[in-house]
Amino acid sequence: MEKPYVVGIDIGGTNTVFGVVDARGTVLYSSSIKTGKYADIEDYVAALGQGLMQVIEQAGGPEKIKGIGVGAPNGNYFNGCIEFAPNLPWKGKIPLAQLISEQVGGIPVALTNDANAAAIGEMTYGAARGMKDFIVITLGTGVGSGIVVNGNLVYGHDGFAGELGHVIVRRNGRQCGCGRQGCLEAYTSATGVARTAREYLEIRKDESLLRELDPSDITSKDVYDAAMKNDKLVLEIFETTGAMLGEAFANFVAFSSPEAIILFGGLTKAGDLIMEPIKHAMEANMLKVFEGKTKILFSQLKESDAAVLGASALGWEVKTQDPSL
Amino acid sequence: MEKPYVVGIDIGGTNTVFGVVDARGTVLYSSSIKTGKYADIEDYVAALGQGLMQVIEQAGGPEKIKGIGVGAPNGNYFNGCIEFAPNLPWKGKIPLAQLISEQVGGIPVALTNDANAAAIGEMTYGAARGMKDFIVITLGTGVGSGIVVNGNLVYGHDGFAGELGHVIVRRNGRQCGCGRQGCLEAYTSATGVARTAREYLEIRKDESLLRELDPSDITSKDVYDAAMKNDKLVLEIFETTGAMLGEAFANFVAFSSPEAIILFGGLTKAGDLIMEPIKHAMEANMLKVFEGKTKILFSQLKESDAAVLGASALGWEVKTQDPSL
Repeated sequence: MEKPYVVGIDIGGTNTVFGVVDARGTVLYSSSIKTGKYADIEDYVAALGQGLMQVIEQAGGPEKIKGIGVGAPNGNYFNGCIEFAPNLPWKGKIPLAQLISEQVGGIPVALTNDANAAAIGEMTYGAARGMKDFIVITLGTGVGSGIVVNGNLVYGHDGFAGELGHVIVRRNGRQCGCGRQGCLEAYTSATGVARTAREYLEIRKDESLLRELDPSDITSKDVYDAAMKNDKLVLEIFETTGAMLGEAFANFVAFSSPEAIILFGGLTKAGDLIMEPIKHAMEANMLKVFEGKTKILFSQLKESDAAVLGASALGWEVKTQDPSL
Repeated sequence: MEKPYVVGIDIGGTNTVFGVVDARGTVLYSSSIKTGKYADIEDYVAALGQGLMQVIEQAGGPEKIKGIGVGAPNGNYFNGCIEFAPNLPWKGKIPLAQLISEQVGGIPVALTNDANAAAIGEMTYGAARGMKDFIVITLGTGVGSGIVVNGNLVYGHDGFAGELGHVIVRRNGRQCGCGRQGCLEAYTSATGVARTAREYLEIRKDESLLRELDPSDITSKDVYDAAMKNDKLVLEIFETTGAMLGEAFANFVAFSSPEAIILFGGLTKAGDLIMEPIKHAMEANMLKVFEGKTKILFSQLKESDAAVLGASALGWEVKTQDPSL
């Protein structure tokens, strides 16, 4: 009998969320542990293994699970390792796919980065069903991307392709967390948007609800809340942020000519406030041959489940990964 | 018996060059016609058909030819048509692959743009043999690109992917022939380099061999010749041009993480003068995870044959193209 379920694991800097998922993209059983609590990778893997076995038993046991997919920052699909992950407690190259597989009686585990997992999730269960060429852009604490070309995720020669949050969009621009200047992420991530707000408050004289807050405490949530109250200054912040994304997207289209660019993550809650300036700036900067061809869509994965769903989609096509690569 | 030869056709604005090629990449018989002489597509195709049949007969007749590959500006691989080709005499959408096939007794014809043809040529006969992930950048009158991901050319959802000469590298920058501003092509094509020279001569006071020429007559060949004589101002022009390419390449790497970026076309004659600033700027702008991993190589296709060879490589894997797409 075909095994009916997969498991998705989403590893974030704060929480690790995991769940059993069926073929229609329903999360049947889920749980989580605190990533940050485990300074030692062995303790982390043991706790994760225990949690995984609980949800797997709820689903009927390991013989029901076809594979496990993991989305993790800087996860490398080729070797199943995480490397250079600045927001995770463990340093060096960690063969995480293998370590997890050992905890669950050898169920095969595939690992990739969280944005690639989101792209596979959209293709399997979401907005990209039936598409062969699309890009998912994740707009969260950072900005990530998963690029699909001709039905396959683009991994590049080393497994790390698709770092579109780190294309440089402004020469000598803002300092980015990656150590360079002017990356798309420095402007259009949640932290980038909050930073833009602080800059606006300093440079401009306009009234704004944000002036009631201590500037250093302003978060992207505050910016969003003010936008929902039609705060004029804040609406401009969304305009600017959307325009930078749209300009960047026009360049991405020149690269892989995707049918759609799909937006995923916190910033998408702003809806048309961010969508309209993106579309406008993208078309205004588009090479003629691509004009009017590329859709901008929001993710169709249910937000609370999206990361687990995305990761789980990898579980359907898991192959053994070689940590020696 | 396996058919031993293919035919490559390179369609440029001035000349159309074609030849019969064997499996080792040797051009056995070749000829050309003047593209610009034929304002009517039917006259052009008839003349091309006549020329093709001559070289095909020299090679032993149509039964020796496995397929014909065509590289043409704005050629669309999906439907075998050329569209929006500003430097060709014929307007509208022209089903060129089908028209050529009809002229040569139905030998299958595949068509793509010239930069994609160069990429397939490098993969089949040149610097990219054995590589699965690489980008070819053509530095000629314009700047084009052919992107290979996991062994396959990236065509995108509409067949027009890979327009890396038209990523915008300077907001509100130089006017580009495409109608937009600040494209990579506007700075790093042959005409872009000549334009940089004219700007330098105007803005700067330094001595230069180029000052002996009428500024409006300066070509990239003049700039190259002056560089070969160690003209200091001109060496700076190569530095600047190389740096812009290197900055752009760092962004391309963030997209598809290629094993190599291969340079093709006139500007590569400058050798280390252009290679060194490219490498330096690319590494200086590279995201940490990609540092030191991507090779910059010159094309290994013999220059006089390169365009025909590149196009011919398509002939080995030709499929029927549907002009109705």
